[in-house]
Amino acid sequence: MRETSRERSEEEVLARIVRAFAGTRLRAQSVGLRSATGSRFLSLGMGDDAALISGAHGYEIVLTCDWFLEGTHFWRYKHPADAIGWKCLARAVSDIAAIGAAPRCFLLSLALPRELAGSWLDDFLGGLKRAAKRFDCLLAGGDTTERWEVLVNVTVVGEVRRGREVRRSGARPGDLIYVSGRLGEAELGLRLLRGRKRGLDMREPRLRKHLYPEPRLELGRWLSEKRVASAMMDLSDGLSSDLRRLCEASRVGAVIKSENLPSVRVTKLERKNGVDPLQLALHGGDDYELLFTVSKSKATRLPRSVGGVAITRIGEITRARDVLVVDDDGHSRVLKPRGWDPFRG
Amino acid sequence: MRETSRERSEEEVLARIVRAFAGTRLRAQSVGLRSATGSRFLSLGMGDDAALISGAHGYEIVLTCDWFLEGTHFWRYKHPADAIGWKCLARAVSDIAAIGAAPRCFLLSLALPRELAGSWLDDFLGGLKRAAKRFDCLLAGGDTTERWEVLVNVTVVGEVRRGREVRRSGARPGDLIYVSGRLGEAELGLRLLRGRKRGLDMREPRLRKHLYPEPRLELGRWLSEKRVASAMMDLSDGLSSDLRRLCEASRVGAVIKSENLPSVRVTKLERKNGVDPLQLALHGGDDYELLFTVSKSKATRLPRSVGGVAITRIGEITRARDVLVVDDDGHSRVLKPRGWDPFRG
Repeated sequence: MRETSRERSEEEVLARIVRAFAGTRLRAQSVGLRSATGSRFLSLGMGDDAALISGAHGYEIVLTCDWFLEGTHFWRYKHPADAIGWKCLARAVSDIAAIGAAPRCFLLSLALPRELAGSWLDDFLGGLKRAAKRFDCLLAGGDTTERWEVLVNVTVVGEVRRGREVRRSGARPGDLIYVSGRLGEAELGLRLLRGRKRGLDMREPRLRKHLYPEPRLELGRWLSEKRVASAMMDLSDGLSSDLRRLCEASRVGAVIKSENLPSVRVTKLERKNGVDPLQLALHGGDDYELLFTVSKSKATRLPRSVGGVAITRIGEITRARDVLVVDDDGHSRVLKPRGWDPFRG
Repeated sequence: MRETSRERSEEEVLARIVRAFAGTRLRAQSVGLRSATGSRFLSLGMGDDAALISGAHGYEIVLTCDWFLEGTHFWRYKHPADAIGWKCLARAVSDIAAIGAAPRCFLLSLALPRELAGSWLDDFLGGLKRAAKRFDCLLAGGDTTERWEVLVNVTVVGEVRRGREVRRSGARPGDLIYVSGRLGEAELGLRLLRGRKRGLDMREPRLRKHLYPEPRLELGRWLSEKRVASAMMDLSDGLSSDLRRLCEASRVGAVIKSENLPSVRVTKLERKNGVDPLQLALHGGDDYELLFTVSKSKATRLPRSVGGVAITRIGEITRARDVLVVDDDGHSRVLKPRGWDPFRG
């Protein structure tokens, strides 16, 4: 119940979002898909009270949502707007990869200050659209509001063949434990970003891993479709926290070897400045690599990499419910969860 | 990558949410539904990377999401925590009602200060659980994080028989326009809450409509299943803004009569203090009533009320694209959108 004005209205913000994603709809139509939205899956997209989805026979629908908040997950004056757009979707899509599903569409909830509803919003939408194309995930709807800070929440909808989803709870004693990619890169990238005085080289690989993470969709689907993985999740908070969650869900324990961890490569100068690759690999967050377990009988079927992403064996599931790490000198100790936890100070 | 402490962890907050909703799962199981979640629809609920849903044959899945933010949509020190819990779900479920669907499950994204993660959270979850039971909508997952303010985003998933959804875009010239319930009650309730010095009587009906809105699920489904409504949406921002949206989606105009509006009843004292029922009915937000159109040939099938909720004819759809209101004295004027718009000052 406000006075009208010449300021931007919610309709104008929505129109800007619709315009930014117009190309994505056309691309989907050009590959021969049906319905006004250009998708077999999505039969009613933006502009109504809700979106409509038609699941395929023999498939289940997968749903996940993720916060991405200024001051908690990113800084408006440190992170480029297009990286914020890319990453808010990539984080949520990573949960879809982690269950072995394929993303289909997403809802965008966006709150932002009025003064960011122009070129900042366009840059944000540019990054979001690039991510949406890369992950083959259509914008289906959402909610926008004005706010003194930037708040994002993304809900992603995916599909998985019935019975093929890979849950956290399927790990059994004796199963081997694997991770994709390198661990700790994104945490080191965050430190580079935090410490920057002047312009940073955005092509720096560790910085890119922090700003533009790539969910491991191809690997996740390979493991699900070949029925190779017994349990899986993505590494968002750090190995020490996430491996414990997988073990708790499966009612098992684990032993990992620190020498086997695919840790980040650091320069001599960085090492001198206190950068410890092992600590980064154990506790660093935001890598969005996959953590999964495979029974010994199926382990021979695992290639060294899928879609260019390396796979590394890091340990074994145990009956005892502890999570242990064996150090280089052969001593084992309990691995305490020291990854990202927003409720710890 | 934080130090561990004895503070509340994210796991503890999640455990509190799971505990609060344990009863809901049991209730669903007790009525003979399958799967670990107790639901035919929801085959994997909280605790994994994502939730799994099985749509029924011949039905489509409906998706919507809604912000509910401290300082924008509610005030932590004015609104009871259990009303915040109720309303965050009710608002999103209202979008499901507005398309003629039935809610099935929801994802809760919650950010809150550590000091609210105790009894405030329990009260919030109490209200949310009452709403979830009332709307028959299971908690399927979500995301929690620590924050200096309370932020809520709710995604609701519903089902509608294929082809029976009622969109905003179906209104045709000559169709009659209807609303459910009374308009402006919630806005008046908000004013009562804002102006309170001491304790308010929470049973006051207009205050209850602001704090504990009831989405018009029964009416929405009746209109969809009987194929009576040609277009429908819910009134969240106010009639003057929302009717214009329906007309734009349908490429039509409308004429409504102010004397026909089911406006809020006010006391003589309130009227003396400047409370204007017509202005409240035209521009007041948050009512979550349904606005819908019906062709003249089907209008005879409309009862006076559905499920105890009155239905009132307020005007007619026109070919001319303006939205007009005819005042008591017979003069017509363009109805400007003056409902809630977060991007206007």
